[in-house]
Amino acid sequence: MKDIQNMRDPRNIKIDKVGVKNITYPIVVLDKENGYQHTIATIDMYVSLSQENKATHMSRFVEILHKNQSMINMKNFPKILKEMLELLDAESAHLDIRFPYFVKKEAPVTKKPSYMEYQCGVCGSMDSPGEMKEFKVYVSVPINTLCPCSKEISAYGAHNQRGIVKVCVKFKKFFWIEDLIDIVEDSASTEIYSLLKREDEKFITERAYENPKFVEDVVRDIAERLSKDENIKWFSIEAENFESIHNHSAYAYLEIENKGGQL
Amino acid sequence: MKDIQNMRDPRNIKIDKVGVKNITYPIVVLDKENGYQHTIATIDMYVSLSQENKATHMSRFVEILHKNQSMINMKNFPKILKEMLELLDAESAHLDIRFPYFVKKEAPVTKKPSYMEYQCGVCGSMDSPGEMKEFKVYVSVPINTLCPCSKEISAYGAHNQRGIVKVCVKFKKFFWIEDLIDIVEDSASTEIYSLLKREDEKFITERAYENPKFVEDVVRDIAERLSKDENIKWFSIEAENFESIHNHSAYAYLEIENKGGQL
Amino acid sequence: MKDIQNMRDPRNIKIDKVGVKNITYPIVVLDKENGYQHTIATIDMYVSLSQENKATHMSRFVEILHKNQSMINMKNFPKILKEMLELLDAESAHLDIRFPYFVKKEAPVTKKPSYMEYQCGVCGSMDSPGEMKEFKVYVSVPINTLCPCSKEISAYGAHNQRGIVKVCVKFKKFFWIEDLIDIVEDSASTEIYSLLKREDEKFITERAYENPKFVEDVVRDIAERLSKDENIKWFSIEAENFESIHNHSAYAYLEIENKGGQL
Amino acid sequence: MKDIQNMRDPRNIKIDKVGVKNITYPIVVLDKENGYQHTIATIDMYVSLSQENKATHMSRFVEILHKNQSMINMKNFPKILKEMLELLDAESAHLDIRFPYFVKKEAPVTKKPSYMEYQCGVCGSMDSPGEMKEFKVYVSVPINTLCPCSKEISAYGAHNQRGIVKVCVKFKKFFWIEDLIDIVEDSASTEIYSLLKREDEKFITERAYENPKFVEDVVRDIAERLSKDENIKWFSIEAENFESIHNHSAYAYLEIENKGGQL
Repeated sequence: MKDIQNMRDPRNIKIDKVGVKNITYPIVVLDKENGYQHTIATIDMYVSLSQENKATHMSRFVEILHKNQSMINMKNFPKILKEMLELLDAESAHLDIRFPYFVKKEAPVTKKPSYMEYQCGVCGSMDSPGEMKEFKVYVSVPINTLCPCSKEISAYGAHNQRGIVKVCVKFKKFFWIEDLIDIVEDSASTEIYSLLKREDEKFITERAYENPKFVEDVVRDIAERLSKDENIKWFSIEAENFESIHNHSAYAYLEIENKGGQL
Repeated sequence: MKDIQNMRDPRNIKIDKVGVKNITYPIVVLDKENGYQHTIATIDMYVSLSQENKATHMSRFVEILHKNQSMINMKNFPKILKEMLELLDAESAHLDIRFPYFVKKEAPVTKKPSYMEYQCGVCGSMDSPGEMKEFKVYVSVPINTLCPCSKEISAYGAHNQRGIVKVCVKFKKFFWIEDLIDIVEDSASTEIYSLLKREDEKFITERAYENPKFVEDVVRDIAERLSKDENIKWFSIEAENFESIHNHSAYAYLEIENKGGQL
Repeated sequence: MKDIQNMRDPRNIKIDKVGVKNITYPIVVLDKENGYQHTIATIDMYVSLSQENKATHMSRFVEILHKNQSMINMKNFPKILKEMLELLDAESAHLDIRFPYFVKKEAPVTKKPSYMEYQCGVCGSMDSPGEMKEFKVYVSVPINTLCPCSKEISAYGAHNQRGIVKVCVKFKKFFWIEDLIDIVEDSASTEIYSLLKREDEKFITERAYENPKFVEDVVRDIAERLSKDENIKWFSIEAENFESIHNHSAYAYLEIENKGGQL
Repeated sequence: MKDIQNMRDPRNIKIDKVGVKNITYPIVVLDKENGYQHTIATIDMYVSLSQENKATHMSRFVEILHKNQSMINMKNFPKILKEMLELLDAESAHLDIRFPYFVKKEAPVTKKPSYMEYQCGVCGSMDSPGEMKEFKVYVSVPINTLCPCSKEISAYGAHNQRGIVKVCVKFKKFFWIEDLIDIVEDSASTEIYSLLKREDEKFITERAYENPKFVEDVVRDIAERLSKDENIKWFSIEAENFESIHNHSAYAYLEIENKGGQL
């Protein structure tokens, strides 16, 4: 059977990335509390294609994914990229794995348990024969933000809303995603929960009112914390508020090369 | 050229709806202030298919749509359904047109103007030879809701959030969608705007705090208003709050056959 | 602490559904091959609210969900609805659980294994004191459809595309969702896979070309099969083709009350 | 009324981007055939925030947008960025405007007219006092691609599917987006239409079969064409196929600095 993909291409144009996109697959990830967690990932897998080759072999990506699905984590991520380089005979490989991750939280007063969902991801690139070029972990954390301006200028009340904060980091060694989530939640007007009884709702409401934050405050507070972490080489932070007085979002973004714990 | 679609089907099974789905098209709709408004619709067009026929002729739907795109409204909606019945030679026809609609609003204190987007829709069915079987207009209105429980139990503040209210009505004669939007916005803790200066934000914040509403209150207040409107034969109301203390929504739904202005 | 929700409401309007919407939660479901499967659900939980009561107690829904998350299936679904009726003291309860479900499939020729994702759901309602009013299971199956008209009129080739078929059933007793998936995949031009080597791709391509299907054919072929199943009391089938020659979909829908295996 | 936003911030952290995100607004753009076209944009507007300032003034973005909504195009785009720099007193400004754009097309044989939708966008950044730092126009074009491998190895037929190609360019002087769309459509197995009669469908089907293309071929063919265009300084091309034999996409991406018409 003819291998069209392997034919010589006459156009002499290198392709940066070619592969499979948005494949959903059951995976198993590490869990700080329970050892591991079953989840469902959406995955992109690409390699570079040299100017000589007509096309890549798409099915090989799925074979690599299937082989590795039972243990996806920061430790074996480079190993998967290496397999991609080798099996696809490529100069560079790219992998992006996004998945919901659940953490059991206790309500602040009643201590009632419930699961909270966080969208997480790992993405990275490797150059042949095996050098990591980029390696990032990210997490999106839903929070509550209460507007400092609204509180200041109003006789009573203050508009607040759900926001989402996405933090992305380059790092030196393994860390728990749970610890990154904690930093984000500490920087909100208040963290949020799936289950709150009335005593908890009173606590949350008052905490948010005592603790007003613009999107600007959120990204700066997280930046202050992350810049003191020796394990973090680079980070980006974006905060988006689904404004309760508008039908659009307020947004802030910053990124910082982290040099030894100094901004 | 053979007309496969017109062949006799042996399976003896009638199909309720067959046609085109999610086609996007530029349309022109009526506008209370300006006469007409250009917008972009997402449209479903279906007919029934008798047990004898193998398939329908999909291209004819798009021909009808193209012919009518410059004036879509409650008045000529039945005319389009009639064309579908005739051109497709069908027993029943269904049409659903959804579109964003913009209204210029003034900020409550500074009177600064801006456009606010509302998702609207018209859907209906007609039976051969030309009897309207169902005819509905709907609109989704983003609002602010402030939680009555949170306000009552907390020493200060109250969680509030963006919500969206969808009202769908069956009616006797033409009405302006703008008037339906007004009823929904009046039933919120406060209506929301694209542009608010500080004086407006103070007004909005205080108005919401003085005016707490559960999703249950929102649907009931709108129901009270609509049930007094002789032009409304039936309505459904759903309110969804994107809770600022949770990562999920609070939701309420009711529908009422409206008999002469009494619940 | 005051219970605002329990106050008497003066408006005298019953609400059909009130509760939590779009909460995502880790759940465990039954799996024909492996006994059980971990997945992630998106869930709506509502009860009716009498005209006397001001509001419902939203947190109780999440308590019920958390208690039951480790085993969600057709068998204990009514038990959850009963808990909702009782804990919320309501006349009717509604539950809708949607989740991706993965089945390991072998490629048709090389037998290479991979996971295929199917969107599934269970929804139902119960009236007090415990009568099931509606109980449905549904599954969405991605397939390939090749156009019979295009094949017939063209000298060579035929346009084909990915389609999605959603089948919803009311049933008498427990069945495996895998068996419903099989019926849908048998009715396609060809079923599809996450992993196909060249030998498989040849097989799939030729199978689709030998087996052209309109959306109308797909819903009728499935209807023929389901109508012979004594366990199915009612079904609806919708097929949507993401047409490869258009930027919109072709669509067909039918529903049938199934009387003893006859259409 | 206190201006909280203008206060001195103690954290000493510069923010790269702060502003409004995902605001939808009616706009008017240029149209090669008709002079101008009404459409609806989704817009992000950001400025940088110096380390001294606590927060930006979000409402000013919407004032600038409202003032300019009746004429958004490549020519006055820098003018809007300049207004942002000045009104927000910022070092850099960013603007991203995305909108559907409709082009009337004639079916290839019958010449029947219909509108086809293309997602377009303009984005750019300006540094104080007024130097354009980045300026890009992009367009997403839905196409049909027929698999060369499937055609080669199969006795008859070939899988094909809808794909979407996104081309983004940096340019020297004004050009018509319609001309960029033409280049993409010429590089597909076949372009696609909203309305096709049977004669057209035969033409399209055969054209696609005669003209098989991998995602790799699509991006390379477009790259060859764009690299000869003296007006294009840089371009990126991504092609995504919604594979009809899989439930995931095939994907290719390349970007090229264009030096005087040579790759």
